[in-house]
This record gives sequence, C-alpha cells and structure tokens, in this order.
Amino acid sequence: MGCREFAGNGLQSFLPMTPVTETRLRVRYAETDQMGVVYYANYLIWMEVGRAELCQACGFVYSEMEREDGIFLAVAEAQCQYRHPARYDDEVIVKSWIEKANTRMITIHYEMRRASDNRRLATGHTRHIYCSSEMRPVSLPEKYCRMFGVGASAAEGEKE
Amino acid sequence: MGCREFAGNGLQSFLPMTPVTETRLRVRYAETDQMGVVYYANYLIWMEVGRAELCQACGFVYSEMEREDGIFLAVAEAQCQYRHPARYDDEVIVKSWIEKANTRMITIHYEMRRASDNRRLATGHTRHIYCSSEMRPVSLPEKYCRMFGVGASAAEGEKE
Amino acid sequence: MGCREFAGNGLQSFLPMTPVTETRLRVRYAETDQMGVVYYANYLIWMEVGRAELCQACGFVYSEMEREDGIFLAVAEAQCQYRHPARYDDEVIVKSWIEKANTRMITIHYEMRRASDNRRLATGHTRHIYCSSEMRPVSLPEKYCRMFGVGASAAEGEKE
Amino acid sequence: MGCREFAGNGLQSFLPMTPVTETRLRVRYAETDQMGVVYYANYLIWMEVGRAELCQACGFVYSEMEREDGIFLAVAEAQCQYRHPARYDDEVIVKSWIEKANTRMITIHYEMRRASDNRRLATGHTRHIYCSSEMRPVSLPEKYCRMFGVGASAAEGEKE
Repeated sequence: MGCREFAGNGLQSFLPMTPVTETRLRVRYAETDQMGVVYYANYLIWMEVGRAELCQACGFVYSEMEREDGIFLAVAEAQCQYRHPARYDDEVIVKSWIEKANTRMITIHYEMRRASDNRRLATGHTRHIYCSSEMRPVSLPEKYCRMFGVGASAAEGEKE
Repeated sequence: MGCREFAGNGLQSFLPMTPVTETRLRVRYAETDQMGVVYYANYLIWMEVGRAELCQACGFVYSEMEREDGIFLAVAEAQCQYRHPARYDDEVIVKSWIEKANTRMITIHYEMRRASDNRRLATGHTRHIYCSSEMRPVSLPEKYCRMFGVGASAAEGEKE
Repeated sequence: MGCREFAGNGLQSFLPMTPVTETRLRVRYAETDQMGVVYYANYLIWMEVGRAELCQACGFVYSEMEREDGIFLAVAEAQCQYRHPARYDDEVIVKSWIEKANTRMITIHYEMRRASDNRRLATGHTRHIYCSSEMRPVSLPEKYCRMFGVGASAAEGEKE
Repeated sequence: MGCREFAGNGLQSFLPMTPVTETRLRVRYAETDQMGVVYYANYLIWMEVGRAELCQACGFVYSEMEREDGIFLAVAEAQCQYRHPARYDDEVIVKSWIEKANTRMITIHYEMRRASDNRRLATGHTRHIYCSSEMRPVSLPEKYCRMFGVGASAAEGEKE
C-alpha cells in the first residue's frame, strides 16, 4: 500500500509509504449536548473509528491484532483542536494517517471535516504504546512493523 | 441486612430481607443532548450505578464477583419509562431493589427521582443472567444466593 | 413509499404503507465494556440511528422536523431484549419500523442482527410523544401524520 | 476565595487567588472498554465534571452562566496524557485549576489520581472560548472576570 497524497494545509507530515484513510460517519443525536453541538469527548471516539480504518488500510484488522497477537494500542496521549462545531446529522469525514512510528509507539494524526462543504471541524492526534493484555509495554512484532512503516523506513520514524 | 421500607407507589414489590439502596449522582453535561435534557440511553447507565451500590448493600463488590468468582451479570432485558426529563446539573437519586431472583437470573427495579423536589423522573428494570467470562449461563454460586435472597426465600423468588 | 415485506418471526406487526428500514453500523471500541461485549445502553443509541433512517424513509429528515417545525420526538419508553452479545467490529443491521402511530405518540420497533451470519442480537422498541421545544406534548401536524401512516390508516394505528 | 496550595509536581502553575478543586467520582462500568480499562474519551468527561465544580468554587453555577447570562464555555482544545489506566470501580480524584484566563478565553488544567493510593492516572487541560448561544465568541462579562481571576490579576493571566 503506497502513500496517497491529500490536500492538507502544508503543515501535515506523515510516514512515506503508509496510507491515509478517509472514514465517513454521521453525527448521532447521542453525540450532541445541550449546547446544540457535538460534545467534545466524542471527537476522540471518531478518531478511534478513523484509526480502525487506518489499521485496515495498513493491512490488518485491529480486533485481530488484539485477539491473535495479544497486542493492544494503549493510548498514551490524545489531543484535539476544535475549529468549528459539528452538529446532529452532519456527515463527517475523518482523515487519519501515521505521523510517526517506531517499535515502541505510534502517533496518528486526524483531521475531521464536514462532508457537505469540506469545512474543517477539528484536528488532533493520539499517541499509542503497544501493550500486552496486562497493559505492559511490548515491542511491536515484526509483521506490524512493516505495516506501520517501521523498518525500512524506521530511520525516518525514529528520527521525527 | 434487612429489608428497608420506602415510600413507593404501592405497586412496587421486592424480595423480603434484601436491601433497597439510594444512590445520588449529578447529571453531567455529556449526558445531555440538543433537546436540552438527558439523552435516554444514559438512564441505563444510572441504573448500572445504582445496581453496583445495590450489590454492595447485598454484601459484595460487583467487580470482585467478576474478578474472583468469574461471575458476570449479563443483561438480558432492560426497560425504562421516562416520566419527566432530567436536566444538566440535576441531582438524581436512583433507588434500586431486587424484585425477583433465582439461581439463573435476577430482576432489579429502579426509580429515579430529582433530589430537589423528589419528582419522579423515570422507572425501569433490568433482568440479568449469571454468566461465565465466556458469556455462558451459569448457576449462581451459593454464597451469592444468600446475598440476593435466593435460598431460604427462594420460594418467593421463584414464584414471582 | 410502500410497505416492504421482511423476513420476521411472524410476531412482528407494523403499520401498512409505512417503511421498514435497515441501517448498517459497525461496533465501535468505545461501545464495548470490560465484559468484552457491547455495553447494554449503546443498543438504545443504535435504535436512535435506525430511527433517524426510518424518518428519512417516511419522507422527512428528523433534524428538520426539530428545526423547522419545532417538533421533538421525546422518548416516553424504551425496552430492549438482549439475545446475543455484539462485539467490537461486528457489522450490525438495525431494522426499524413503525408499529403504532397516532396524533399523540408513535411506537417504533427494532431488530438488530449481526450482518456476518444474520444472528439476532437484540430486539426492542421505543415509544415517543411529540413535544414542543419546551418539552410540552403537542399534536402531530398533518404533514407528518401522512408520513407516519396516521390518517387514512389512523384507524389501525389507534386501534392497536 | 483564596488560592489553596496543593502537593503538585512543581511544574504546575495556576492563577493566584483562584481556587483549586478536588472532585471525587467512581468509575462506571459503562466507562470501561474491552481492554479492561477506562476508554480514553471518558477522561474528558471527568474533566467536565471537575470543571463544573471549579466554576462553583469560583463563585457561580455553570448552568446558570448558560441560562441567565447566555455565556457558554465552548471547548477550543483538549489534551490528555494517560499515565496509568483507571479501572472499573476505582475512586478517582479530579483536581482542577485555572492556569490562564483573560476576557476571551480560559485554560483549565486537570490532574486525575486514584484515591486508594494517590497514583496519578492522567493529566491534561482544556482551553475554552466564551461564546453566545449561537456559538459566537463574546467577551467575558465583568462579573465572571472577577471570579476567574481576570482583572486585578489580568496582567498575569494575559502574560502567561
């Protein structure tokens, strides 16, 4: 899977030869709050939805990574900048890409846009540590290194 | 732990010699939706909070039931009647009691009132099957039977 | 929009000439709990997602009903029977249909199945009262009556 | 209300003469995920719970700020570092304090600890813009300036 170009703001960086995915979802009523907009914690759930699709584009199903290899992507950090409020029934596009990855952790970036007019709603990132089911840090198995662009391109990943 | 009387509507029934608990919680902003009231699924979360305290009043900590005995209270049915909308920052009292229990399942009833004026917000129940960690039905171990009022009072529990 | 037949269990009923919709969604990690299955309150959120699509199949967008006509579908009752646990990454099909509707309330039924093997996960219903933005009951405007099958078929709706 | 000292890590800063609050909450089952720990988005909900209590310690009830003055604290940024996983039934202490405030925005910091052993679970912050009910930025009314430590101490607030 090669690196797909996308119309960014010129400041985004991502690992060469890793995918950029776009996930579409529709805002649920449950996700709004009495301000009439989406409650801020829900953007982190959308990141998770985007992340799952990014894993698939990398060549594996996240649930199988957990079940078959006992590797969990524990969240070490999450950050989100809210630029324009999403509202009920909006179609949202979550763009996800790996910004940095090595054998101990991975950083994924996200951009959320409203599908109707491409308005940028939010941007953010999550940083993950690979863990065992007992939540102990582990080194990323070889097969996932290739998928996350760690290895041949590990130099870039490590440096960043 | 004996049966504590409470001011019901005369229609409520509960197992003799099992507790009735009252749990207080404050409505979170996250729990509201754009209608300006609490989103309906969140009342089921409040039932869970009440249920945990009911377990404690029965003599055990639910998390230890899971961890030490491998018994899970899988939900088989949930029902809620919404009588008056709860709003952000309301203090809510969740009253919980066992309505029926035998060695295969347990039914817990709930009444949610607004603390400020005792207004009834919702009533409902959940029915649970005891399960192993693999989600297979199991018979309730003796030690929990006593706590849930199954055994000496099993006759009543079974009949209902 | 006519009434579409579907493979039910023979016990389901629905208003003639109103639609039956199928909504697909994928289980999010956020929706699971430490039992390893979907937390029970989330099925009510899936019902909401199905309901929105049912509205659309009836001929209107629910958010516009709120915004343009000031009509809200306040939940008066919700009920769910859990038959088989949904798990992370499962594709779920939510079937939704109007079981009963009159000028004061509407009852919608739901059936949730796992897409991979059509296994029934849950069934349930929600009952709604039409409300103003101040949460006061209102009579359903004529235009929605037609869409919900109230009117010509009101007799059936009322009787049920 | 004066500034209460607290045992920090020496790196924390907060506006002089504004309060530091501690809010206790118990982890709900709904907040866990299949990893057996609290799902990461829920920490942002806990921040909200801490924030509401911080507002109260500042001298006002957040819901009244919305209702009576039409001022909303729209989230512009949220960040959380996850240090140790919270688990079901843990009692969590959310420490909240104003790090920076001026007439246009406010930054609140949070530290979440497990009550049983004071273990630090997470730290983070939220940045808010004062908005009207139509989500348009507004200048903070005088009465809230005093409460947030903007004004006499505005110099510090602005500088930071």
